[in-house]
Amino acid sequence: MRLRSTIDFLLYDWLQAEGLSRRRRFADHSRDTFDAVMDTCERIAREKYAPFNRTVDLQEPQFDGEKVILPQCTYDARRAYAESGMLSAAQDYAMGGMQLPYTVEAAANCFFAAASISIGSNMLTSGNANAIMAHGTERQKQVFAANEFNGRWAGTMCLSEPQAGSSLSDIATRAEPDGADFASDALGPRYRLKGNKMWISAGDHELTENIVHLVLAKIPGPDGKPVPGVKGISLFIVPKKLVDAEGRLTGERNDVALAGLNHKLGWRGTTNTLLNFGEGKYPVRAASGAIGYLVGKPGEGLKCMFHMMNEARISIGMAASMLGMAGYHASLEYAQSRPQGRPIQGAPGGGGKDANQPQSRIIEHADVKRMLLAQKAYCEGALALNLFCARLVDEQHTGSEQEAAEARLLLEVLTPIAKSWPSEFCLEANSLAIQIHGGYGYTRDFPVEQYWRDNRLNMIHEGTHGIQALDLLGRKVVMEGGKGLQLLAARINATVQKALQHEKLACHANQLARALADVGSATKAAWATGNPQEALANAVPYMQAFGHVVLAWIWLDVALALLAKDDELAIAAHRGGMAAMRYFFHYELPRIGAWLQVVKARDMTCALLEEEAF
Amino acid sequence: MRLRSTIDFLLYDWLQAEGLSRRRRFADHSRDTFDAVMDTCERIAREKYAPFNRTVDLQEPQFDGEKVILPQCTYDARRAYAESGMLSAAQDYAMGGMQLPYTVEAAANCFFAAASISIGSNMLTSGNANAIMAHGTERQKQVFAANEFNGRWAGTMCLSEPQAGSSLSDIATRAEPDGADFASDALGPRYRLKGNKMWISAGDHELTENIVHLVLAKIPGPDGKPVPGVKGISLFIVPKKLVDAEGRLTGERNDVALAGLNHKLGWRGTTNTLLNFGEGKYPVRAASGAIGYLVGKPGEGLKCMFHMMNEARISIGMAASMLGMAGYHASLEYAQSRPQGRPIQGAPGGGGKDANQPQSRIIEHADVKRMLLAQKAYCEGALALNLFCARLVDEQHTGSEQEAAEARLLLEVLTPIAKSWPSEFCLEANSLAIQIHGGYGYTRDFPVEQYWRDNRLNMIHEGTHGIQALDLLGRKVVMEGGKGLQLLAARINATVQKALQHEKLACHANQLARALADVGSATKAAWATGNPQEALANAVPYMQAFGHVVLAWIWLDVALALLAKDDELAIAAHRGGMAAMRYFFHYELPRIGAWLQVVKARDMTCALLEEEAF
Repeated sequence: MRLRSTIDFLLYDWLQAEGLSRRRRFADHSRDTFDAVMDTCERIAREKYAPFNRTVDLQEPQFDGEKVILPQCTYDARRAYAESGMLSAAQDYAMGGMQLPYTVEAAANCFFAAASISIGSNMLTSGNANAIMAHGTERQKQVFAANEFNGRWAGTMCLSEPQAGSSLSDIATRAEPDGADFASDALGPRYRLKGNKMWISAGDHELTENIVHLVLAKIPGPDGKPVPGVKGISLFIVPKKLVDAEGRLTGERNDVALAGLNHKLGWRGTTNTLLNFGEGKYPVRAASGAIGYLVGKPGEGLKCMFHMMNEARISIGMAASMLGMAGYHASLEYAQSRPQGRPIQGAPGGGGKDANQPQSRIIEHADVKRMLLAQKAYCEGALALNLFCARLVDEQHTGSEQEAAEARLLLEVLTPIAKSWPSEFCLEANSLAIQIHGGYGYTRDFPVEQYWRDNRLNMIHEGTHGIQALDLLGRKVVMEGGKGLQLLAARINATVQKALQHEKLACHANQLARALADVGSATKAAWATGNPQEALANAVPYMQAFGHVVLAWIWLDVALALLAKDDELAIAAHRGGMAAMRYFFHYELPRIGAWLQVVKARDMTCALLEEEAF
Repeated sequence: MRLRSTIDFLLYDWLQAEGLSRRRRFADHSRDTFDAVMDTCERIAREKYAPFNRTVDLQEPQFDGEKVILPQCTYDARRAYAESGMLSAAQDYAMGGMQLPYTVEAAANCFFAAASISIGSNMLTSGNANAIMAHGTERQKQVFAANEFNGRWAGTMCLSEPQAGSSLSDIATRAEPDGADFASDALGPRYRLKGNKMWISAGDHELTENIVHLVLAKIPGPDGKPVPGVKGISLFIVPKKLVDAEGRLTGERNDVALAGLNHKLGWRGTTNTLLNFGEGKYPVRAASGAIGYLVGKPGEGLKCMFHMMNEARISIGMAASMLGMAGYHASLEYAQSRPQGRPIQGAPGGGGKDANQPQSRIIEHADVKRMLLAQKAYCEGALALNLFCARLVDEQHTGSEQEAAEARLLLEVLTPIAKSWPSEFCLEANSLAIQIHGGYGYTRDFPVEQYWRDNRLNMIHEGTHGIQALDLLGRKVVMEGGKGLQLLAARINATVQKALQHEKLACHANQLARALADVGSATKAAWATGNPQEALANAVPYMQAFGHVVLAWIWLDVALALLAKDDELAIAAHRGGMAAMRYFFHYELPRIGAWLQVVKARDMTCALLEEEAF
């Protein structure tokens, strides 16, 4: 099934997204308007993204000492995306937005991710502007967010520093009040920032008139020292070029200097930078430090920045899913056209092949089918999970009080999976896509090696695999007395009950029920001693097992939707979905045994090994 | 433990390689001479290989239309390797060789593979010359093999064609007798070859005075058509530059033309080429076709070429293991020096970290230790397996009649694992090495991303994963009435019996015995219907499970050697080895359940899915 059909089925038949238009916020919408947005995005992705995916891989961003040089296609893709209105798709009409449900926005963005994940970095601009919308002053919204939504400016997220990646409490960038009148600036309390930020995507470029950096920094306490830990962190708007209270460029460059570009394994279309704030390269207004405007309250920087964390992590999960999907479709096409070898015949050991027969296409070989079905099960399952989470975001924002409360809880538990699972298993899918291509897949003449390289980032950025696992087992499944996990279990059981009614699904339903019980008892066993060192020693295997159970649930639920549509859906597409579901239950779900075993045993083989023994 | 100590322990303490010097062929050798060879290789690898591994990745081979351009370091590395005598390490003294056991040769070559897998392609030259030694005439040995061993010339293996990769029976390169006197050429029966060869490593370069291509081609039958299938394939020596019967260049270029270079994901130091034979670019001696000399008998080309297949596949397994090992050591060093985050404290959900404490080094985090121990278990285990197989090659060549017969049988069964298992799991190790580095691992400033890219080739070349799996389940475990599998089982049971005597190993021994029985019953169940389509539908999961059982056995056997040396070996190294063994039994061996389940069920979910359903 092609991407659009897959998305249509998941969105409308499975997630009933059309029903969102009955809500007040989305009242002007209908399936027609949703489809029109998706048509536009699909077209732009096809015309402005897909043809240039290899170009941006080969023509990496370069820094000539003054400016970042990017290929023309990146400018064209950026312009087309901005003109589509997608930067502000979810915003109020008053902000120039479309008031589109997040579910549909996420679905429409799939086409760009599948066509070229790295040519655009618009997600960052939207995320930046969204954070300002949530925590900024009216003026900050009108000056900064509005100009990001309309495409004039771009945005970044400046969290990490060379010495502080996963450990944000250790950031050392300082922000000090800028003069006696610092508190009365129209753009917000004005500070001077000094520090170095690392891994800043789209941190410098000439794609837009200005760049709005959102920067985490510490305001010194009364003793002049930064407050230790995350409580000392505040959030600042630091524009690359200074602007007045109406958002006009003043002609002054702010002291934000590009210190260097990172040369990456993949995802090369997006500039990744080391930025120096306030080092004096561009001195401004006779004092030192880059000028920044406080957003929200001092000390609440992390909270403000992470306001959109669920959406950000869903975006990463979606990126990973779409890279996987792109590889799946490429390898499917290759398998359908490449002749090689012949079907196996004959008896054990003596199995012969008739060399007089013409060669088969490789899709006729069982192992190639296995590798294709695995990719389908991974990538369509991951897409379904992330669309489901996107739907929860809409529930949280526009559902009834109870729907919103449940959606929030479910998102707490599911977001680590929505981000980590596709990062790991759709990467594996990309490896299978290479394998299907054989030697050709190992060359840059085919796209699959690039998908694999691009996808490797997703287990690292926006919280590494290890961080997601600690979040899941250390916080999410135990928070509020385990309410999130209980709610998820109730949802899974509801699917199980429905599936038990279907002859074709009953045994899978039972298998899922057992797997869920297994995760439950592993969770208890992990925490049985109450000692986090023991509980969390195997947090990653726990997350892998948890993720597989979630995906099995998603597939079973999708299968129910497939069965409900039995007579309408094309027979082949129906069979494909059911086969992917069965693949997941036969080949994948049984893997949880090995993962959970070490969790239940609180196995300390790794955790207790002394350093010298490695 | 550093690579040399690991190899020393496996070679001398575990495999008793010193004992080989009691055999007549190796009588001049001793641990001292073995060590001297390894010292030399370790030094050359350190000086001429390791510093240039990134150079050859960045300065890919280029073709200027006439010549292939390679960086200077590749010339220097090639010269140093040739001067070390390693090209002919295993050859008779009479051929200028060292009569070194293959076990020691393989161990010594590890250092090059770990330092820079792609800067050298000497394995191909040795393999080529070895095939000529086994099947060529005396003159062919003296002219071609000898000049490869002494470093003057290099060699290639020309099997694949653009339309025939895994399916060699479909090669279309033709060889026709060259004139009436074709049979009386001093260099062997002379033919004219026409065809295209793909994926030819080191297929053209200026590193050596000449290149000796070993080419598979078909001699037309009496009807003028090539004989279908592999029976029609013959083997030819096709030199790039023509030589006389004494091995002197005649000054004539043979009609072998470089049609293009492949641009690869990794392994970039080795030129990979598309070669045209006899297309007329370099017409020679007023007739068309490239001149080639038949090796062995007509129709026995594949047999001659695959004479060294076990060694070739062990080399690939070793390459994969060493790439994994290089990543392990790089990530260990990084983990020991990089501060980030703090240990977990406190209670479930509320686990806090004291921000006033200095950061920990990341090796202090449990999940980093897990990723390190996984790498150690994968890579040292894979190295041990491949050294074990190398030892079997020596048994086969120099052991008693019974030892040789058993070694041959064991190699038949183990070679697909020795090649495939490291290709898959040491690639996974490389991914873990990237993960430990976080964002830094995703940049080209650290070596781990290159190891991962380089390693991805190993599941493809020298027989893909799918081909290895068909070989294992379709041929090797059923051949000769299952004798190979029975013999392997007997060896595994012998280890189990010994391990049962040790308190520390008894439960692992029982676990291994159960796993072995599980593989046995899965083998039977797969073939229960006698239908190869059903038996082989899940050949790859079978191979994965089989591989894990073999590796568990290897680790248990290594643990016995560790315990035997309890008082001598450094305590930390001892603990590390035992922990890696336990890791393998706790975290890895239980995975076989999921793999074998589909094999036993002869699950046809993938194999029977119609093409349109994908």
